[in-house]
Amino acid sequence: MYPLAEGLFAPRNQWYVAAWSSEVTREPMERWILDLPVAFYRTEAGEAVAVGGRCPHRHFPLGKSRLVGDAIECGYHGFTFDRTGKCVRIPSQAQVPAVCRIPSYPLVERWQWLWIWMGEPDKADPSRIPDHTELGLLDPAYAASGGVYYAVPGRYTLMHDNLLDLSHLAYLHKTTIASDGIAEAEEVRDEGPGWLRSTRKMPDVPCAPIFAQFLGHSGRVDRAFGMTWHLPSLHAGFDHFYEVAAEPCTGRFLGGIRIFHAITPGRRHDAHYFFGMARTFAKEDPAVGEAFVNGLRVTLDEDIVATREIENMLGAHAQMPQEILVRGDTHCVRGRRLLEALIRAEQPAPP
Amino acid sequence: MYPLAEGLFAPRNQWYVAAWSSEVTREPMERWILDLPVAFYRTEAGEAVAVGGRCPHRHFPLGKSRLVGDAIECGYHGFTFDRTGKCVRIPSQAQVPAVCRIPSYPLVERWQWLWIWMGEPDKADPSRIPDHTELGLLDPAYAASGGVYYAVPGRYTLMHDNLLDLSHLAYLHKTTIASDGIAEAEEVRDEGPGWLRSTRKMPDVPCAPIFAQFLGHSGRVDRAFGMTWHLPSLHAGFDHFYEVAAEPCTGRFLGGIRIFHAITPGRRHDAHYFFGMARTFAKEDPAVGEAFVNGLRVTLDEDIVATREIENMLGAHAQMPQEILVRGDTHCVRGRRLLEALIRAEQPAPP
Amino acid sequence: MYPLAEGLFAPRNQWYVAAWSSEVTREPMERWILDLPVAFYRTEAGEAVAVGGRCPHRHFPLGKSRLVGDAIECGYHGFTFDRTGKCVRIPSQAQVPAVCRIPSYPLVERWQWLWIWMGEPDKADPSRIPDHTELGLLDPAYAASGGVYYAVPGRYTLMHDNLLDLSHLAYLHKTTIASDGIAEAEEVRDEGPGWLRSTRKMPDVPCAPIFAQFLGHSGRVDRAFGMTWHLPSLHAGFDHFYEVAAEPCTGRFLGGIRIFHAITPGRRHDAHYFFGMARTFAKEDPAVGEAFVNGLRVTLDEDIVATREIENMLGAHAQMPQEILVRGDTHCVRGRRLLEALIRAEQPAPP
Repeated sequence: MYPLAEGLFAPRNQWYVAAWSSEVTREPMERWILDLPVAFYRTEAGEAVAVGGRCPHRHFPLGKSRLVGDAIECGYHGFTFDRTGKCVRIPSQAQVPAVCRIPSYPLVERWQWLWIWMGEPDKADPSRIPDHTELGLLDPAYAASGGVYYAVPGRYTLMHDNLLDLSHLAYLHKTTIASDGIAEAEEVRDEGPGWLRSTRKMPDVPCAPIFAQFLGHSGRVDRAFGMTWHLPSLHAGFDHFYEVAAEPCTGRFLGGIRIFHAITPGRRHDAHYFFGMARTFAKEDPAVGEAFVNGLRVTLDEDIVATREIENMLGAHAQMPQEILVRGDTHCVRGRRLLEALIRAEQPAPP
Repeated sequence: MYPLAEGLFAPRNQWYVAAWSSEVTREPMERWILDLPVAFYRTEAGEAVAVGGRCPHRHFPLGKSRLVGDAIECGYHGFTFDRTGKCVRIPSQAQVPAVCRIPSYPLVERWQWLWIWMGEPDKADPSRIPDHTELGLLDPAYAASGGVYYAVPGRYTLMHDNLLDLSHLAYLHKTTIASDGIAEAEEVRDEGPGWLRSTRKMPDVPCAPIFAQFLGHSGRVDRAFGMTWHLPSLHAGFDHFYEVAAEPCTGRFLGGIRIFHAITPGRRHDAHYFFGMARTFAKEDPAVGEAFVNGLRVTLDEDIVATREIENMLGAHAQMPQEILVRGDTHCVRGRRLLEALIRAEQPAPP
Repeated sequence: MYPLAEGLFAPRNQWYVAAWSSEVTREPMERWILDLPVAFYRTEAGEAVAVGGRCPHRHFPLGKSRLVGDAIECGYHGFTFDRTGKCVRIPSQAQVPAVCRIPSYPLVERWQWLWIWMGEPDKADPSRIPDHTELGLLDPAYAASGGVYYAVPGRYTLMHDNLLDLSHLAYLHKTTIASDGIAEAEEVRDEGPGWLRSTRKMPDVPCAPIFAQFLGHSGRVDRAFGMTWHLPSLHAGFDHFYEVAAEPCTGRFLGGIRIFHAITPGRRHDAHYFFGMARTFAKEDPAVGEAFVNGLRVTLDEDIVATREIENMLGAHAQMPQEILVRGDTHCVRGRRLLEALIRAEQPAPP
């Protein structure tokens, strides 16, 4: 499925951000992930749970059902499933056949995020979730703010295309966060197991007033910024400021921010988007974090609109239109290839 | 088509409730039944008429056209059809070719209902419509109230599934009409030519205050209730109260109600639902009937919402998801099999 | 595709009205024509331009992008295309590969209309556009009024069906512009290269008060009216009044109006409709033209509603329903055949 090769949708043996912690409560919630309905809720002890969102009896949505203790009771005929997905009660009979069960999905709560694993259960290794301390989300050197969620009206891969080509900042976000010189700065690309990174350095540039204020620094700075895609879900960016030095970005670290975009496949033509930030400054003042996050909402809206427009454009064509790739797409295309490789690795080898 | 076998939709050589009498007037009305457009209207003498709802000239909807005497005149180019479906006028020419005609469907007015026959015309035998006196609709021992119509946003079979498994009362209708003990009462199932019945007796139980008031009886009662599906359209239920006796439900009949659910296939993914009631008490007071019917609207809404949710769930799956059947589905599955048998009986025998 | 033969949509080597002049400004506009997205805008010098509406890089709609001088800059990553469709800038690289381009469509401004050619560019001969002086749009004997646009919720051919069978005036427009005797008047049909005409004469009839007022004539008139379809886009009608003479419509010309319906294929199931008029009277008073045009809006609405109803009726049928043709359809069917011939003439000959 475009922009991936025909027949490829998304890797399943992977961790994805499924929800903000605050979204999952004692009231069940439905969300489609990897083209499957999932019901989320919390146990009485407060633990977040994810199970299949369709009652196997009559297909009623369990995410629109109710809890009985730590189990979910189908809102139609009362079939009840425990948090492992086992059916523990069929009201009309004493015994429950073993075949009557729903999937249960490993769910890990990290920072404000719930990470889900919808692949083969025995491969669900939480150590494969990007380290939230390294990311800056759980590092005391940073104060993190989250809570922004978008139901994206387009296939999830369009959001990755967006994030892997930051040259769109100067155009899509022309009136919001575009800044001079970014397109001219040399892009350094590198990658490792499970990640892909693009960084740029801008030596001896003026410091934007909003940062100057918080960094307690007036005048010019060395600036380094970039983004790492921890495949397949999380793009973790940084924007760091240093005192100007002969060797760029080796001077005293003045501070900076980190930016987080988690993208999760929904149905074939929609997706989920979770956005957060972390900052080195004003860490005791949550209002600063909120102000930064809210200040970006107009920009995030622009990305959502572009994704919707492209999804509509693709859907309006009877035949998939041709795409032209240029050198600036190297990073984006590399990302697509890595994503395809993850999907293909899950498929059975040909006989 | 789920929940029936692949390729089976609905039996056509059958009577279906098409409309409330009050819905059909001198202003034509369009309704899709058995996946075909039908135009309904009344003649000047007041007789209800059903003809094909598509003008065969340019496909304009006749149900959105106008009457000229007892004929319907297409709102586009004026082709005019009498109540037998014969074209009686083509404005641009003097003669009308015999091929220019629309179907005419037998329509029988019984109680407040219009029953339609859309199958082979020579098989349209009105004596096959369930006897409205036996049902309690035209029996002077009862006062009947009707008028509730729902355009159901789901395939008609989901409504039959709903009505054939009353264990949903305790869950879907938990906050409205659920009552204790129903699930525990033993279900007696029986069937005969063209019908399928499920009944339960609850000896020596408290009488619900609403009934105690109208039955003029305080204290405990024997209660018998159940529902008969007169295939394929009508489910006729009863809820009867008796003085407590050694042999349950053989004591003096105190009174009760009857409940009617008529389900009619619309297009592939929608349906029509007509609901009515009859009571043995307060027969002279129509406000009591209205109050009972209106009191059930919230409950009926719950059934419609469940049907819509399941239709959506089915539609969201690329492949039809598996269904798990349990002993409590015996009645429902028997109903599906009878419905399939009706459809198959209409299909030509293999050569 | 109905009402044309299976597989035939629309001729492409043709001029179509794409927009009103006033619709195309320095703010790009998107419109789908012949099932393709087109972006319209004006150069700094005021010339109207039409180019492909999809950026070939990431499919973002150029009709929702912005202008840089006379070029259009994609709102996503800034790929910039000049008015010939050539890509003149890719922000992330110095050179632009020749393959990176979009179509450019010849666009001719005549009267208040922009005519587009989306076929083979070397066949775009503006002399094939119907002569606007002959039509009465640029003839000083007439004062023309335009500006009415409808996005039609149905395939374009349904609008031609509508205009080729004026017997619908007496039914669809029964309460608006229907008038006695039109159906009875003899239809004269003729055709020539690229056009098809139907005319009627009504000798010695009362002059409608609205015309009597403007023509400065009381009493009876000879009336001639009809419509010429200049395939494939424009229907040009006339309604002329003469002093009564022995040989009808040979008396003194009192005046009259001309009526213009331009129909353009949009996507498969929608279309564009542009309506205008011209009059021989009150030429110095634009309010009279506006009043005439506005007076017809209710009638035009009826045509749009009929088209939508028929499109919906066709879409609701799993199989295309049969159509009955009568003698009054001769003109309409001839039009369909001519349209099909235009399409077939463009298709490669079988080997």
